[in-house]
Amino acid sequence: MDDKQRRLARTDRHAPSSNDCIAALRSALGADRVLTGTDIPARNMQDACHYPPTRPLALLLPRSTTEVSEALRLCCAHGQPVAVQGGLTGMAGGAHPEAGEIALSLEKMVGIEEIDPLSGTLTALAGTPLATIQEAAKEAGLLCGIDLGARGSCSIGGNVATNAGGNQVVRYGMTRKNVLGLEAVLADGTIVRSLNKMIKNNAGYDWTQLFIGSEGTLGIVTRVVLGLHPQPGKVSTALVAVDAFADCIALLRFIDRALPGRILVFEAMWADFMAVAMERIGLAPPFTRTYGIILLIEVMVADDALEQVLAETYERGIARDALVAQSGGDQKKFWKFRESIYEYGRFFPHLIGFDIAIPLDRMEEAVAAMRKELTTRFPHRVVVFFGHVADSNLHIVVAAKNSDDSDKDEIERAIYNMTQAFGGSVSAEHGIGRSKRPYLALSRDVNELDLMRRLKAALDPAGILNPGRIL
Amino acid sequence: MDDKQRRLARTDRHAPSSNDCIAALRSALGADRVLTGTDIPARNMQDACHYPPTRPLALLLPRSTTEVSEALRLCCAHGQPVAVQGGLTGMAGGAHPEAGEIALSLEKMVGIEEIDPLSGTLTALAGTPLATIQEAAKEAGLLCGIDLGARGSCSIGGNVATNAGGNQVVRYGMTRKNVLGLEAVLADGTIVRSLNKMIKNNAGYDWTQLFIGSEGTLGIVTRVVLGLHPQPGKVSTALVAVDAFADCIALLRFIDRALPGRILVFEAMWADFMAVAMERIGLAPPFTRTYGIILLIEVMVADDALEQVLAETYERGIARDALVAQSGGDQKKFWKFRESIYEYGRFFPHLIGFDIAIPLDRMEEAVAAMRKELTTRFPHRVVVFFGHVADSNLHIVVAAKNSDDSDKDEIERAIYNMTQAFGGSVSAEHGIGRSKRPYLALSRDVNELDLMRRLKAALDPAGILNPGRIL
Repeated sequence: MDDKQRRLARTDRHAPSSNDCIAALRSALGADRVLTGTDIPARNMQDACHYPPTRPLALLLPRSTTEVSEALRLCCAHGQPVAVQGGLTGMAGGAHPEAGEIALSLEKMVGIEEIDPLSGTLTALAGTPLATIQEAAKEAGLLCGIDLGARGSCSIGGNVATNAGGNQVVRYGMTRKNVLGLEAVLADGTIVRSLNKMIKNNAGYDWTQLFIGSEGTLGIVTRVVLGLHPQPGKVSTALVAVDAFADCIALLRFIDRALPGRILVFEAMWADFMAVAMERIGLAPPFTRTYGIILLIEVMVADDALEQVLAETYERGIARDALVAQSGGDQKKFWKFRESIYEYGRFFPHLIGFDIAIPLDRMEEAVAAMRKELTTRFPHRVVVFFGHVADSNLHIVVAAKNSDDSDKDEIERAIYNMTQAFGGSVSAEHGIGRSKRPYLALSRDVNELDLMRRLKAALDPAGILNPGRIL
Repeated sequence: MDDKQRRLARTDRHAPSSNDCIAALRSALGADRVLTGTDIPARNMQDACHYPPTRPLALLLPRSTTEVSEALRLCCAHGQPVAVQGGLTGMAGGAHPEAGEIALSLEKMVGIEEIDPLSGTLTALAGTPLATIQEAAKEAGLLCGIDLGARGSCSIGGNVATNAGGNQVVRYGMTRKNVLGLEAVLADGTIVRSLNKMIKNNAGYDWTQLFIGSEGTLGIVTRVVLGLHPQPGKVSTALVAVDAFADCIALLRFIDRALPGRILVFEAMWADFMAVAMERIGLAPPFTRTYGIILLIEVMVADDALEQVLAETYERGIARDALVAQSGGDQKKFWKFRESIYEYGRFFPHLIGFDIAIPLDRMEEAVAAMRKELTTRFPHRVVVFFGHVADSNLHIVVAAKNSDDSDKDEIERAIYNMTQAFGGSVSAEHGIGRSKRPYLALSRDVNELDLMRRLKAALDPAGILNPGRIL
C-alpha cells in the first residue's frame, strides 16, 4: 500500500466517525464555532507554502481555551485528525489542511490580557497578531524582541509553535528566548498552564520548551507570556562592503566587542543577490564598484559611534567601504536592497526558496560549493544567496528564467544533501511542516528521530494533532 | 505500605539482581570503572544538600559516552536504579545516592574538545568544571555566560542538568540560554546527539531543551556545546541604597534603558541582611544611615558613565545614596557584603536556606508578609532576605540563635505555602532534587505534574534514572 492509498484508506475509515465528530462538535461548541462546506473561507484552505487549496472537513473557531479543550477532547475520542492554524503565514505547509482533517484556527482568540511593567512581561491569547503585540509593548515603553516580515498577519501562537526567527535574532534570539510562559491544550483536551513571569523558575521540567517549535504536533498553544526588552533608543543603519564571508564574521565580532549587545540587524547579501537587485529590480548601485558581500546592519547607537567603529574596521582591512544612513530616507533606501527579494515574483515565473542553517565555520565553503553546483548543473536558473548570517541562517533563492520548473525536486535534493554534508540544518527558521519532512533525516540522526517519535507518542498517542507534519 | 517500607521492599527485590548487574558492569567496563565497598570515596556519598552520607551499591566512573551508554544499558536490563553525579555541588539532594542505587559520576569525562572562534562556541565533556570552561573561553578572547559561586567544583553537565542560575542571569540568562547543543544518553543506553553550533535550527523538536533542567531524570548529559559572548571590557561596581523594592525595579529599568544590555549583576540585600553583615560579621557600614535595601550592581561601562546614570536616579528620587568602586579594593569590599552569607556557619548553629522565585509585581508584598510570619512565629530565629532580584530570585536564610532546630519543617512549610500564595516558584535556581519534591505541587498544577510524569515514562519507562528526584 503506497502513501496515497494509505491516506485514502485512513480517510475512508474515518469518514462515518468524522460526521459523528462534527455533530458532536456542533452540539458542544455551537454551530457558529463549527463551519463546514462553502461556509469555510478560502483563506483557511492553505498557508503560505501554497499547496493547492484543500477544504477541511470542518473549520473550528474556538473563542476560549475551554473551547479548544472541548474540541480536542471530542476529536481525540473520534480519532479525528486536526490541522492547527495560526496566522497562516508558515512557509513549510504545517497549517495547510489535508483532506479528511478538521482545521482548528486560533483566529478568534485575540487579545492582550496583561502588560506587567514591573516584571516587563506581556500576556496574550495565541491568535493575537504579532504587530498588535509589538505596538502594545511600544505603548508601554518596552519592546517585543520578536520581529519578522509577516508581523501584520502572523499570530504569536504560530510564532511560538514554529519558534519563529526573523531579523532581530542576533540581538533578542529566536522566539524561544522571548517566551516565559505558555498555556497549551494537549491532544486529549488536557489544559496545561504555566503562565510564568519569572526569569528563574526551576520547579520541575520546563515542559513549555518542548512545545516551542513543535509546530502544533504536541499540543495547541492558547496563551503566551513574553519577556519584553527596553526600547533600543537611537538605531543607526549602514551598508558595509566586504570581500568574503570571513570578513563578515570579523566585522560582526569587532562591532560586538566594541558595542556589546547593540547589534540589532546583521544581514548579508552576496554579489549575485546585489546584481539582481540592481540589474533586474533597478536599484541604484550603493558603491562605485562591486564587492563579494554587502552587509545591511543596524546597531543601537548614534550614527557617529557607528561611523567611528566602521572606520576602525576599514583601517584594519575588514570593511572595504561603508555608508551610514544620514536620514530616514537613507535607511529606507538601504532596506530596499534586502527587501528586493519580495519583488522577485514580478520578474521570475518560478522561485524555489531555501531556509537552511550552516555552521559559521563552514559557511564560506558551503556557499561556494552550492553556488558552483547550482550554476553548473542548472545554468538556466538565477541563483542568489543572502541571509541573517550572524545566526548561521542562509537563504538561497533559485529563480527560473523561463516557465520550466521541472528540475525543482532535483534542485531541492541537491541543496539539502549539501546542507547535510556541511553539517547544517535543513530548516533554520521556517520549521519542517509537511514540505521539509522528506529531508528531516538529513539533519537529525536515527536516535534523535526515534526520540522525537517517543515524545509525540507520549503526548498524542492517537496521532490526531497535525499528522504528517515534522514526523 | 508507607514510603519507607516501599523503598525497603524495592531494595530487597533488587538485591540479587544488583549483584548480577555489578558483575555485568565489571565485565563490560573493566574493574577500574566499577568501585564498590570501601573503594568508594566519601565525596561520592553525598552532595551539597548534606543528607547523611550514603554508600551506593557501586560507583561507576565511565571515561566515554560509549561507556555511559553501556553502563545504562546494563542497569536498565537489570532494573537497577542509578544516581547521576556531576560536581556534587547541588543544594537539593539530586545527586545524593540512596541505599540500593548505583552512582554514576561524570568526573572522569573532563576536557574541552573544541573552541570555534568563528561560531563563538565551546564544546566540552560533561564532567568539565565550569571554571575550566570560563578560563578557556577567556583565553580565546570570549566569555562564558554561566557563572556561580561553585564554579571551581561544579561541572558543566551538572549546570545543564539543573539549568543553573547564578549571578549573571540578568545579562546572559540561565544555563539554558547559553546551551546550543547536547549529547545525552537515555535510560536504555541510547545515545542522542545534537552537537549543534547554529543559533537558528528548527529541524524538528529541540529535544535538548527538555533535558536542560531535568536533573538527570530523563537522560545523562555527556557533552555540551555552549554559545560564548564577547568579553565585557570595563566593568563598574556600585553599592546603591534605596528605600523599597519598587525603587529596585525602577533603578533596574532606568539603568537598563540608559545602558541597554550592560547590567551584569543586580543583587538586593535587605536591611536585615545588612544588619547581620555589620553587627555579627563585623563589616563597616557603607553608608552613614540605614536604608530599606542595598543593591550591589555591576554594569559593563566605565565608572564615570555609571556615576552619571546613578546621579540621575538620585535626582529622580529613586536612589537615596550610592558608592561607585574606585579601585579593585573597593570592588572587593562591596562584594564582601553579598558574600557575608558564606560566613554564617561560623555564627549560627543551624541555617535554613531558601531559593524561591516571586513574580516581581508581588515581591514587595511577599517579602513583607514572609518577614512578618517568620519574625512573629519564630522569634528566636534570625531572618535575612537577599537575592538576584532582577530575575525574580529571592533567597531567605533563617538562622538559629541556639541549637534548637526542631521548627525547621514548620518554617519550610510556612515559606513554601506563602510562595504558592504569591504565585511564586519553590525553586528558582537550585532545582527540586529530593529535598523539594514534597513542595513541587505548590508551584505546578495537577496537569503539569501529569505531563511531567508522561514525559518521564516515555523516556525512562523502568524509572531507573535518578528515581525519587523531582517526581
